Amino acid sequence: MYEAELSFAERLADAAGGCVLKYFRRPVAVEDKADASPVTAADKEAEALMRDMIRRDFPDCGIVGEEYGRENGGAELVWVLDPIDGTRSFITGKPVFGVLIALLNKGRPVLGVIDQPYTKERWTARKGGRTLFNGEPVVTRKGVPLNKAYMYSTGGRGMFSEEEQKRFDVLESRVGLTRYSSDCYAYGLLSSGCIDIVCEAGMKLYDYAALVPVVEGAGGFMSDWRGNPLGASSNGTVLALGDEALFSEVAEALK
Amino acid sequence: MYEAELSFAERLADAAGGCVLKYFRRPVAVEDKADASPVTAADKEAEALMRDMIRRDFPDCGIVGEEYGRENGGAELVWVLDPIDGTRSFITGKPVFGVLIALLNKGRPVLGVIDQPYTKERWTARKGGRTLFNGEPVVTRKGVPLNKAYMYSTGGRGMFSEEEQKRFDVLESRVGLTRYSSDCYAYGLLSSGCIDIVCEAGMKLYDYAALVPVVEGAGGFMSDWRGNPLGASSNGTVLALGDEALFSEVAEALK
Repeated sequence: MYEAELSFAERLADAAGGCVLKYFRRPVAVEDKADASPVTAADKEAEALMRDMIRRDFPDCGIVGEEYGRENGGAELVWVLDPIDGTRSFITGKPVFGVLIALLNKGRPVLGVIDQPYTKERWTARKGGRTLFNGEPVVTRKGVPLNKAYMYSTGGRGMFSEEEQKRFDVLESRVGLTRYSSDCYAYGLLSSGCIDIVCEAGMKLYDYAALVPVVEGAGGFMSDWRGNPLGASSNGTVLALGDEALFSEVAEALK
Repeated sequence: MYEAELSFAERLADAAGGCVLKYFRRPVAVEDKADASPVTAADKEAEALMRDMIRRDFPDCGIVGEEYGRENGGAELVWVLDPIDGTRSFITGKPVFGVLIALLNKGRPVLGVIDQPYTKERWTARKGGRTLFNGEPVVTRKGVPLNKAYMYSTGGRGMFSEEEQKRFDVLESRVGLTRYSSDCYAYGLLSSGCIDIVCEAGMKLYDYAALVPVVEGAGGFMSDWRGNPLGASSNGTVLALGDEALFSEVAEALK
């Protein structure tokens, strides 16, 4: 299922990645959005490019993007675009940002691409298939106890509410190692079996839609902090686990 | 000056990088050192390899390395090796770790290499020459006010003492943006003009010796948090600035 769509999504990623790289580590106008997230010319240009391609090749599909909002929202199939997830990494030259592309069928993610154009690393997944990293199947790590688990989180000022930060701190105190400022790259690493947990908050549909198929297609688990499936009405908390067996202990810490 | 030595240092980096990559994103035995920093087989193998090359080509030089300590310590020229700076990034699959190689002349760093073998990014510098990134000269950013400055820090549990953390928090509250878990890669980005400040603590000679020539050769400034030059008797605090003009405001925040 969705083979043609995934092939198209990879063409979207090629186009967006090429566009984004023109601006990477080069002086670029950075404006402040209402939510104070920096946004670049690259972001807008790459999303406009992808929207044009979708309108041409999949005119019946809807589109949701970080930069230009929603169009044809009532469609059954909706493309979800985040041309630069991790703009703070992008503007500081750190290649852990990514192009995120997802396809929703009736609101459920059925296809996802995480693309890091500078390091040329790409994770892809479609419903019914396995997650691939640069074309090779990957699987998450299993059997690591919580106190040895490797956790990533973008973290930093603004990601967590005060209450969420307290809960996250409890979880951090129980895992083996925590690293920050990881953006979407963390979900790729989890899918490749390098880390065990990603715990974040304040995320929107275009931040997580592409991640769900990638993580699940590698054998991992994704939900909000309470274990609910991620959907349009999610509260922004996001949990990814390489091994679902960790869930009860992780949820206990986040409660 | 030090052209032959820099050419040799690049051969060291090639060898160490190749060795380290064999273990990257592959299951590897991780032991706990006394300081709880994870250390890998890759670390030891790469340092042993570099030591053999130095003994053969520069038998009169001393060597200081993270894994195997000091040899021929009284020599005028001493190679300083950290085969994997950022072992926590390394073991979690994130390519911001690096091979660090420095040459000290009477205790002062005169040559430095920061090598990221996975992304094939290398910053090199020698006394009297300019810092190069993959062979091309780079310069730091100037003229950015503190409240717009981009700061990186490895941070995380264990890097800062309680007192240092408080001071760092003051600085963080005054800069434009802070990102974490950056390891030596941050100093490369600063040298390339992508970020403005790196502020760290708990660093040892082999952590910072290679960074000083790279940052200074790109027009930047390095010292401890009080402005003292970094040397064998440093207190472990490290500050790198793209623009020395930021120093008084940064030092005020860290006081």
